[in-house]
Amino acid sequence: MDRSDFRAALHQVADLVADYLETVEARPVLPAARPGDLLADLPAEAPEVAESLEAVLADYRQLVEPRLTHWNHPGFLAYFSSSGSEPGILGELLAAGTSVNAMLWQTSPAATELEVRVCDWLRRLLGLPDDLVGHINDTASISTFLAIAAARHEKVPELRHQGLMGRPEQPALTVYCSEHRHSSIDKAMVALGLGLDRLRPIAADQDFRLDPAALAAQIAADRAAGLLPAAVVATVGTTSSTSADPVAAVAEICRREGLWLHVDAAWAGSAAICPELRPLFAGWELADSIVVNPHKWLFVPMDCSVLYVRGIERLRAAFSLVPEYLRTADQEAAGEKPLQLMDLGVQLGRRFRALKLWMVIRLYGAEGLRARLREHCRLGRELAGWIDADPHFERMAPVPFSTVCFRAGLPGASEQQLEAFNERLLAVTNRDSPFFLSHTKLRGRYVLRLAISNLRTEERHVAAVWRRLQEQAALLRAA
Amino acid sequence: MDRSDFRAALHQVADLVADYLETVEARPVLPAARPGDLLADLPAEAPEVAESLEAVLADYRQLVEPRLTHWNHPGFLAYFSSSGSEPGILGELLAAGTSVNAMLWQTSPAATELEVRVCDWLRRLLGLPDDLVGHINDTASISTFLAIAAARHEKVPELRHQGLMGRPEQPALTVYCSEHRHSSIDKAMVALGLGLDRLRPIAADQDFRLDPAALAAQIAADRAAGLLPAAVVATVGTTSSTSADPVAAVAEICRREGLWLHVDAAWAGSAAICPELRPLFAGWELADSIVVNPHKWLFVPMDCSVLYVRGIERLRAAFSLVPEYLRTADQEAAGEKPLQLMDLGVQLGRRFRALKLWMVIRLYGAEGLRARLREHCRLGRELAGWIDADPHFERMAPVPFSTVCFRAGLPGASEQQLEAFNERLLAVTNRDSPFFLSHTKLRGRYVLRLAISNLRTEERHVAAVWRRLQEQAALLRAA
Repeated sequence: MDRSDFRAALHQVADLVADYLETVEARPVLPAARPGDLLADLPAEAPEVAESLEAVLADYRQLVEPRLTHWNHPGFLAYFSSSGSEPGILGELLAAGTSVNAMLWQTSPAATELEVRVCDWLRRLLGLPDDLVGHINDTASISTFLAIAAARHEKVPELRHQGLMGRPEQPALTVYCSEHRHSSIDKAMVALGLGLDRLRPIAADQDFRLDPAALAAQIAADRAAGLLPAAVVATVGTTSSTSADPVAAVAEICRREGLWLHVDAAWAGSAAICPELRPLFAGWELADSIVVNPHKWLFVPMDCSVLYVRGIERLRAAFSLVPEYLRTADQEAAGEKPLQLMDLGVQLGRRFRALKLWMVIRLYGAEGLRARLREHCRLGRELAGWIDADPHFERMAPVPFSTVCFRAGLPGASEQQLEAFNERLLAVTNRDSPFFLSHTKLRGRYVLRLAISNLRTEERHVAAVWRRLQEQAALLRAA
Repeated sequence: MDRSDFRAALHQVADLVADYLETVEARPVLPAARPGDLLADLPAEAPEVAESLEAVLADYRQLVEPRLTHWNHPGFLAYFSSSGSEPGILGELLAAGTSVNAMLWQTSPAATELEVRVCDWLRRLLGLPDDLVGHINDTASISTFLAIAAARHEKVPELRHQGLMGRPEQPALTVYCSEHRHSSIDKAMVALGLGLDRLRPIAADQDFRLDPAALAAQIAADRAAGLLPAAVVATVGTTSSTSADPVAAVAEICRREGLWLHVDAAWAGSAAICPELRPLFAGWELADSIVVNPHKWLFVPMDCSVLYVRGIERLRAAFSLVPEYLRTADQEAAGEKPLQLMDLGVQLGRRFRALKLWMVIRLYGAEGLRARLREHCRLGRELAGWIDADPHFERMAPVPFSTVCFRAGLPGASEQQLEAFNERLLAVTNRDSPFFLSHTKLRGRYVLRLAISNLRTEERHVAAVWRRLQEQAALLRAA
């Protein structure tokens, strides 16, 4: 692809992306695809000879695009709906043009220092103290994994060399969390060799918040049983109901017990840029580590997960390894040494992710970001009000942010019948639809989940999905 | 940013990227930046109010771009020089526009199935058998981590629940590799809780290839000592010299001993698309897992690492965890169930990385990719010939692919003086220069390393860097 061809191609794809975003709302959020549809349409072998851009883009439009689930659709209200803003897409394009790998300061001073600075910006916007130092990972799964790994290292520094096996004198480590924690905590327990059985899910209160007294009791019981408590993961914005654990009370227990406190605020954390929402986070400023994903609710395209750690040395102690071929003069020099991002985790290669976060913050401004998050929370409260006012529906959890859990009622139905009914309601609401909701279970009950954190979701979408739910539920009841 | 503003902005940034790639060669590869330069130029606080795109792009050009290390510069010959091709950049832009998270089939059927298909395409191009099933991770650090985790799981399946600690009856696991393995193996040992001491670096032969007899002896000694050998990592294309371990002999040992064989071909693996280079990989078709990074030597922009595993169930056994909120109808349905990418590793969130690999393969065609890799290998051999013909220089390793290790000689100098001399030579060669080389140590000797795997590197660049090295060495000798 020569120079002028590339420039023309880039403009062509730019138009394709702009067209996509302009028209995405007209499509169903979920494609009609069945498993294997795209596979059947693609040749089994790579082409021997170069194909034309026209052929590839035609296949993209005809074969790939119709099988996408449209995350940038304003009706994507499932999971933690995340969306890529226009400024973020511009940032991705700039980063792709550089192909920078920010493993070392030397391999891109700008990527390293911009990452330091935008993580600082975000930290201040969130109202967090200076000694929480941030860096960017791909996902919260990795950020949380690194945090628990650092906690593990502090309790058993010799594991770096000796490992966890064959050391009968070493009491086993335990980690604590709410019964409503995200599955990434469980995965970290498996991956780190700590084991699922050593993760202690603590009972939550009626509002799905971890109960500090139950936490303290479990820690005491574990100590009595000869185990070694290492860390607590508190969640602000649990996946099912977005409940906020009482972080201040948990932090006090961690201080007393000498445990690492990790706060999983992957989705909700962005909301702390609004001072009026900070009470939900009270105490997180005492954490040893916090994860906040700008790719979830700050309109940065996948992937961008910021991990803040109190004392970056603690990550470095767990992970730094510098082979000869990665030594650089700046590491050896006297004076202040630059941060080497590779020292902070498992991954050596690192994309230039700071650029898109920088562009999003600058092109919206803090006020612009706050306004959008406030509007999402307002829409969530509004929907909650509509549900509360409708005798055919039942709200199933408080709405601290903008995610609403509810279900349709069915007079005289058993729990099992209610589950089947709401499962059907979800299916018909999502099928060939401008909306996509997901579900979860709360206290064993099947509930629908509507998460409003998509940049493009407006009041008209929330009103329309509510009408659709009411209508579909009525039709199903009548059937 | 409204619709027409975004379209205009995208075209503006597209031109900026095209301009960058057209002019990158005119810049020094390494910026003149000193630690803290960019930090000092950026405000300490995020802007309160939205800024204009013009202001942000002006800062990008004036503050960020001059502090980039230019990975897409044809003179970037350090580390494993990797580069983002034009088709790959187009793929990144398309993917950014979708903001897809391919965690589940349902969250983007196209992303999941395109990933399956392009990994198949690549597998066939590499000459690997059908039962090696591929998926894409961010980095080889993660791919290798997952492979060793799966090996660990097969030896101790109960660790998933019980963990590795407090089980005195369980012999400790050991992992084997060449003394020339990449540091990501060491990091995986730390992260997985196996410990650095349980990684057995096996002595290499004179050509830096793992010695199978020494491997067998170490395994026997470990068994005799009550340890439990679990996996061997063989490398094709070691980081320092790009040597290829004798995979067939290693595979035979693994078969006999019941060990998981992981092949780290993160950089060199792409070269197996050229049949004449396959003898260097002989035996890798017997591996339990293989990592090949298209972002290293197949012109796909960061990040894209393909992990092939013999029997995808083995990864799923180690990592699958499905919380209620991620259950979907297709997981429960009868008949063939679609692949759920989240089941294959630690990370839940997954970018739509398949798109850029698909576009690179289609827009170059297999022949186009082979031609570029062959040219790189030819340039490597040519440079090796020039070094061998110059009495002032000494080649320090064979050149199986396109990376050349060498040093400048200094009559009568000690090893220590040679190291200092070559360190100075590297510094002056790289400073304010259209070239960037790195170094390593081989048998304790400091050597310069010139890796030719950058899409844009041509014969004229290799000839020019060689002249620069000759001239600078002569100047230093005369000084």
